[in-house]
Amino acid sequence: MAAFRMEHDLIGSKKVPKDAYYGIQTLRAVENFNITGCPSHRKLILAVAMVKKAAAMSNMKLGLLNEKKGSAIIQAADEILDGKFADQFVVDAIQGGAGTSVNMNVNEVIANRAIEILGGEKGDYDIISPNTDVNMSQSTNDVYPTAIRIATISLAKNLLSEMELLKNALLKKADEFDDVVKVGRTQLQDAVPIRLGQEFEAYAQAIGRDLARIKSSLEALHEINLGATAIGTGLNAKVEYIELAIENLRNISGIPLRKAVNLIDATQNTDVLAAFSSTLKILAINLSKIANDLRLMSSGPRAGIAEIKLPAMQPGSSIMPGKVNPVIPEVVNQVAFQVIGNDHTISLAVEAGQLELNAMEPVITYNLLQSIEILTNAIKTFREKCIVGITANRERCQEMVEKSVGIITALIPHIGYEKASQLAKEIAASDETVPELIAKKNLLPQNVINNVLSPKAMTEPGILCG
Amino acid sequence: MAAFRMEHDLIGSKKVPKDAYYGIQTLRAVENFNITGCPSHRKLILAVAMVKKAAAMSNMKLGLLNEKKGSAIIQAADEILDGKFADQFVVDAIQGGAGTSVNMNVNEVIANRAIEILGGEKGDYDIISPNTDVNMSQSTNDVYPTAIRIATISLAKNLLSEMELLKNALLKKADEFDDVVKVGRTQLQDAVPIRLGQEFEAYAQAIGRDLARIKSSLEALHEINLGATAIGTGLNAKVEYIELAIENLRNISGIPLRKAVNLIDATQNTDVLAAFSSTLKILAINLSKIANDLRLMSSGPRAGIAEIKLPAMQPGSSIMPGKVNPVIPEVVNQVAFQVIGNDHTISLAVEAGQLELNAMEPVITYNLLQSIEILTNAIKTFREKCIVGITANRERCQEMVEKSVGIITALIPHIGYEKASQLAKEIAASDETVPELIAKKNLLPQNVINNVLSPKAMTEPGILCG
Amino acid sequence: MAAFRMEHDLIGSKKVPKDAYYGIQTLRAVENFNITGCPSHRKLILAVAMVKKAAAMSNMKLGLLNEKKGSAIIQAADEILDGKFADQFVVDAIQGGAGTSVNMNVNEVIANRAIEILGGEKGDYDIISPNTDVNMSQSTNDVYPTAIRIATISLAKNLLSEMELLKNALLKKADEFDDVVKVGRTQLQDAVPIRLGQEFEAYAQAIGRDLARIKSSLEALHEINLGATAIGTGLNAKVEYIELAIENLRNISGIPLRKAVNLIDATQNTDVLAAFSSTLKILAINLSKIANDLRLMSSGPRAGIAEIKLPAMQPGSSIMPGKVNPVIPEVVNQVAFQVIGNDHTISLAVEAGQLELNAMEPVITYNLLQSIEILTNAIKTFREKCIVGITANRERCQEMVEKSVGIITALIPHIGYEKASQLAKEIAASDETVPELIAKKNLLPQNVINNVLSPKAMTEPGILCG
Amino acid sequence: MAAFRMEHDLIGSKKVPKDAYYGIQTLRAVENFNITGCPSHRKLILAVAMVKKAAAMSNMKLGLLNEKKGSAIIQAADEILDGKFADQFVVDAIQGGAGTSVNMNVNEVIANRAIEILGGEKGDYDIISPNTDVNMSQSTNDVYPTAIRIATISLAKNLLSEMELLKNALLKKADEFDDVVKVGRTQLQDAVPIRLGQEFEAYAQAIGRDLARIKSSLEALHEINLGATAIGTGLNAKVEYIELAIENLRNISGIPLRKAVNLIDATQNTDVLAAFSSTLKILAINLSKIANDLRLMSSGPRAGIAEIKLPAMQPGSSIMPGKVNPVIPEVVNQVAFQVIGNDHTISLAVEAGQLELNAMEPVITYNLLQSIEILTNAIKTFREKCIVGITANRERCQEMVEKSVGIITALIPHIGYEKASQLAKEIAASDETVPELIAKKNLLPQNVINNVLSPKAMTEPGILCG
Repeated sequence: MAAFRMEHDLIGSKKVPKDAYYGIQTLRAVENFNITGCPSHRKLILAVAMVKKAAAMSNMKLGLLNEKKGSAIIQAADEILDGKFADQFVVDAIQGGAGTSVNMNVNEVIANRAIEILGGEKGDYDIISPNTDVNMSQSTNDVYPTAIRIATISLAKNLLSEMELLKNALLKKADEFDDVVKVGRTQLQDAVPIRLGQEFEAYAQAIGRDLARIKSSLEALHEINLGATAIGTGLNAKVEYIELAIENLRNISGIPLRKAVNLIDATQNTDVLAAFSSTLKILAINLSKIANDLRLMSSGPRAGIAEIKLPAMQPGSSIMPGKVNPVIPEVVNQVAFQVIGNDHTISLAVEAGQLELNAMEPVITYNLLQSIEILTNAIKTFREKCIVGITANRERCQEMVEKSVGIITALIPHIGYEKASQLAKEIAASDETVPELIAKKNLLPQNVINNVLSPKAMTEPGILCG
Repeated sequence: MAAFRMEHDLIGSKKVPKDAYYGIQTLRAVENFNITGCPSHRKLILAVAMVKKAAAMSNMKLGLLNEKKGSAIIQAADEILDGKFADQFVVDAIQGGAGTSVNMNVNEVIANRAIEILGGEKGDYDIISPNTDVNMSQSTNDVYPTAIRIATISLAKNLLSEMELLKNALLKKADEFDDVVKVGRTQLQDAVPIRLGQEFEAYAQAIGRDLARIKSSLEALHEINLGATAIGTGLNAKVEYIELAIENLRNISGIPLRKAVNLIDATQNTDVLAAFSSTLKILAINLSKIANDLRLMSSGPRAGIAEIKLPAMQPGSSIMPGKVNPVIPEVVNQVAFQVIGNDHTISLAVEAGQLELNAMEPVITYNLLQSIEILTNAIKTFREKCIVGITANRERCQEMVEKSVGIITALIPHIGYEKASQLAKEIAASDETVPELIAKKNLLPQNVINNVLSPKAMTEPGILCG
Repeated sequence: MAAFRMEHDLIGSKKVPKDAYYGIQTLRAVENFNITGCPSHRKLILAVAMVKKAAAMSNMKLGLLNEKKGSAIIQAADEILDGKFADQFVVDAIQGGAGTSVNMNVNEVIANRAIEILGGEKGDYDIISPNTDVNMSQSTNDVYPTAIRIATISLAKNLLSEMELLKNALLKKADEFDDVVKVGRTQLQDAVPIRLGQEFEAYAQAIGRDLARIKSSLEALHEINLGATAIGTGLNAKVEYIELAIENLRNISGIPLRKAVNLIDATQNTDVLAAFSSTLKILAINLSKIANDLRLMSSGPRAGIAEIKLPAMQPGSSIMPGKVNPVIPEVVNQVAFQVIGNDHTISLAVEAGQLELNAMEPVITYNLLQSIEILTNAIKTFREKCIVGITANRERCQEMVEKSVGIITALIPHIGYEKASQLAKEIAASDETVPELIAKKNLLPQNVINNVLSPKAMTEPGILCG
Repeated sequence: MAAFRMEHDLIGSKKVPKDAYYGIQTLRAVENFNITGCPSHRKLILAVAMVKKAAAMSNMKLGLLNEKKGSAIIQAADEILDGKFADQFVVDAIQGGAGTSVNMNVNEVIANRAIEILGGEKGDYDIISPNTDVNMSQSTNDVYPTAIRIATISLAKNLLSEMELLKNALLKKADEFDDVVKVGRTQLQDAVPIRLGQEFEAYAQAIGRDLARIKSSLEALHEINLGATAIGTGLNAKVEYIELAIENLRNISGIPLRKAVNLIDATQNTDVLAAFSSTLKILAINLSKIANDLRLMSSGPRAGIAEIKLPAMQPGSSIMPGKVNPVIPEVVNQVAFQVIGNDHTISLAVEAGQLELNAMEPVITYNLLQSIEILTNAIKTFREKCIVGITANRERCQEMVEKSVGIITALIPHIGYEKASQLAKEIAASDETVPELIAKKNLLPQNVINNVLSPKAMTEPGILCG
């Protein structure tokens, strides 16, 4: 018995594996796009299946699709949403054709499964046509952008949760380290005192801003162009269909999607994806800065700053015994670099849109979903395997702040900048501490010195007095 | 008579030109930073002067600065704000030191001018000290970030106005071209019809989104860290000073600035600048896409698409007589590339912040202010010298839409995708138009053909019927 | 029976699956780095195995490793090189620790396999120690950079072959289209005539330059730091070992590797990787430009430029019957964008090196190897599925060149630029062609017109005369 | 008397300031392009003038341009090359039109000056025509790319000299610090010992590689397309002219320029500019890494690593007395970021070339020349104001290396990795040094300890023995 069935399309005929739920167009795409070796993201496929279900429901309701066909299509879509046929979505993630191959892959799998449900043989598209029936009232140009948004919003949910957890973990550390006074540093040079807890609170603030930015730019992705069809004009989609399909999709996805203000604009422009990616880039930048700080502050153990200790996660060296490295911040840095590079690719692809469509959406999607996913993983890793286990080296912090020169700044309101500058120079050339020199020179009475030169007091606003 | 005066600082002594209002620290910076040959942006200097005035007013009010000194400082700052001493701000725009040289340049000019006002000789810092008096309750670490925000907000005002004007110009064209039916194109291949006006409306929508994004991210720049002093802890700044200084600065600048939620965070993190820049990048991307479309649609005059005609601005070639090129969209593309590159530089610099400060703020500022300015100029140019003068080639549009194959799409609800596909193939191989073939084959009665295959009707949602 | 064995390291103890060839350090890394879900590139693992074999051979020869241990280690390495244990290399491609986890993964698999060979139980590291024996005379800091270079050189071989084939395919087309005269275009506006073959030859030239650049920058990757050990000083590696190990590795890999001039430099600096990546970026840029040109020239079929026809690879639209899109150039564009983004990530990571090491090498490697691979795939696809099948629309080319205004340029030597300009303006406003107007005005005799205004003759250097 | 003269072009008529040497086309460009406020780089203008002179000489020789006109044009060009008329080159650096406005600006200035020389009135183009005479045998499409190359090569000469000087300064420091043994660090954690001199030698090596890369990619810029005219086909340029013009230009510029292999390719593709820029990017990355290292190693003075001291260039803080910051490395970092961003812009612009020309060359040139110039300035500054004045803190280096745990690595060949690991853990938990513990435990005799644990000996390859 033949292991193949013949299928036909605009280009010609082709043997399709008999068992395959996908059809000739999917097969052509598989042959055409052998690029990364990875298929499209699972969430994207599921999102397209949701669109198919929503469209079929709407087409049935409007009498465009008959009950029998419609029910079979919906059942097939539901099976995909239940996790079936996962191995049938086989087109490379980076593909030409503006997403048509992903759309057709889902159209074909649904059509063939629906044909089966209706008792037919796979490939007998007279029973259910992937284009006429499954794709009814739709075009890749509205299906694909809609699916990108659903997949993005759905993946971003986890990211937001992990960001929230990270922020809270940082705030908890801020609390724990609130009494650890240490040397503040600007431009890597000793400055005035700060509390370790204040530093962690500042990190939490930055993550908080990222949360707000990402949420806000995610908001714009709730506008979809479903019903826009080919170029956004809505040809072949009834006005009632558009409203209905979006309502159905809202229910199926559980996401409060809404119709784009201008369907033509929403079909051709992908700036909202670039804008969303750029908020991920800013998050990456903030994470990288925090990771850098932690690596700096935990440098040592004996010949570095060594103010904090990161949890030891694995032996650090194949040759140096006892070495432990900041591997978790390092992986956070690298994920940040990856996300920044991905954002670059996305910007290039968004700029390359032409006239009524952006044909580069597949590479945008590939990078966008990867960015969300690796950021989510990296943030979770950062929190669980690094942040929560950080300890302060309180003795080291205290020792360094006491001998630091920067605390002389508190004397400016008392003796002026120029005089303080002279003293600072004198101290720097010696081994003395600031209080020692001030006392030795009888510049201020000892009790005033104690008050004015209290490192802890310097960590809050105000002019210190005797 | 000597043309120089001697000044002294932590490093040593130095001759300063006798007439110079700047002092030794400025001079050192000029010698240290010979990079771009351009000084800091004028708006940045003015913003620092505003901060100085606000600080002096607050210090006087709190009794930290006496009436005489305070008034002289305020008068000197006012003179700078009136445009005087513009040639005294001489430090290179790209500089090390996290902005200290810009801050000290302004401190020194104000001090020397105030000394003059008080009847002293320039350089006699016993009368007014640049650090102790002019910089009282301040640090570069709060002055500079505050000034960056004021300069940015102030420059962005013009950008927003120009964007608004561009959006309106595009909408006006959308209206003008609302009846011009033409071939829509996806992936540069002929698709279904669209109206030229719809295309311009989509451009306007994209600019509208940019307006919203830029305004929203500009909002975050209204949070300033004035009063944070050295590392954000507020050492040497009274709590009352902080409130007072911000209030004064609000009045002086006319910008509704507010105190940052967390001064330490606001001192060390510059993600809001990167976030703002990334909204400029998205604007640049959208502008570039529009410019590309206009260049495509105006390609020709005889061997291109030639659907529209851009205003002729200058002879296009030194060798080809009669050639006119789309020079205005081309300059818009280039400005877009510049802004995208600037955003990249800004991202790198923001990521490079360490611990309590980001020492790379000067290069961030240099690029940010340039981006705003060249975008403003390019958008104004785009509107005035291109958009408003665009005309449609109505005959050409009509001719091409009539012979296009894409309009067959409207037949799918009537004959199905597969049959339509076959017809499309047949037409493509011939010279016939879609209506001709349908009529010849007697597939539909002529009056139905006219209705279903009306290009104009296809530009709105719906299924076309006979 | 227990499914686990206990293993111990600096951090503590841990259960390892009994059947696993990897050990505790690999397991920790798997737990620590859950980022992309993908392991390191296969070629990288094989390259590390080659290093292990070369090191063991050298250590045996120098009497540092005894015959029994050494032979077992070599056999284990050979088995890996034969494709065995492929599922044992399980650490995520993006990882902290500067590659230590990849190195230890290979060390552990080889150790456990060698233990088995020697009749021991997996985990009995007294028989063979992953660190003391397998990693003898080595550090991750020399093993990993060496392996990156081997993997890169080995993958790049295919890329260079595909580039060569592409160049030749373009040249063949240049030949085929050598007689197709068409309108040249600058700034998308009609210019003077060119031959289609000349355009394809120019593409081939650009790819030829890329070949030269990539080969040249690949050359620098033949310098390896094997023997540099921990930070490049070579501690614990005998001078004779270094020479021997590199010679052995040269034989094993078949690549003419050589010792880096300065081992410390070669251990800490990764600029050669960034430099290599940047040559891939330039290739990507050239490919993207060619893809853009092909998409432009094949635009249509009826409302575009339509000078060439790309092979139809798949139906282009789920809704528009008969539409065929330039899907292959589109995937080339997207791969180009991906490679440019990857180069960005690599640049960031290379810049982040600190002091004696660059801890970000894993993300560099991940992107570098992906870039090579997707470029190789995209170029092969471009050639096979697009370039070789391109056909010229000769009638269209001829028709457009004949009516174009640009050919008037050939008259400048005869009538001057200013007069030619006037005529050009007149023609543009009419429907006439250049020869028609010149004849009508009796500006030149007809036979001179024919010679001077021959489009084909204009495609070569020279002043055309009557 | 009228302050204006009337000029005419394809577009219409326009008043030109009577004294202006530029003409109507320049004036239009000035009005059209109000973007950056800066004109094109001086070197670019001079390079265009060289081309004009070379072309006139060649045209005269071939009898295309008469003696009188030719001599006047050459004299005018020479005057420009002597520095005259510098204020007449007024078109904004970022401009549409692919450089036509720069070319026409020079054409017009030369024409008007030549008219004057011949006794005419400025604007009387019957005497000398900017297009017919000054631009004879030329097009912007060959003049501008040729000029970009000359300007780049000429500016790069200084860059290469400064790089050479920097390399030598680093090598001199390598020598000076050859005996300073210190802690090596990987991943910011203490590793095995290194000599400070070795670190500086590694920096010199990296700069040496940059020198080779930049020289090599500069080589490709010696290929020029002069004589290619409009689109590279050479229309209106005699074959003899091409050879002659390049020979003349070689003599005038003193640069060994040669004719491009393929003039069409050389006219449309700008990948060599992107490739050259990318070598500048790699240089920037290496400089940034070195600057980062110096900032790290000089961190302190009391709460940092403090192994080296950078020359104090200026007071570091407006508020913190005595603070001195690493301002020179900081400006180097910022220049590096600028250059990396510029490279990004250049990549975007190079990719945007279409068909026979890249219209984005002006923004490429703007960024390329800025990158060369600021790198030259930054490198000179880096050397003079930082590198040469660096001093080592020998006591600190010695103290840290002695107490470091990493030196235990030298014991592996004696006691194995696992045992060494245990000891390392024990030491880390205590205050002991490695030699102290080894001695206390009687693991090795004291004289063996001294030899095996000699930090200095560890900085060279080999296994240390007793």
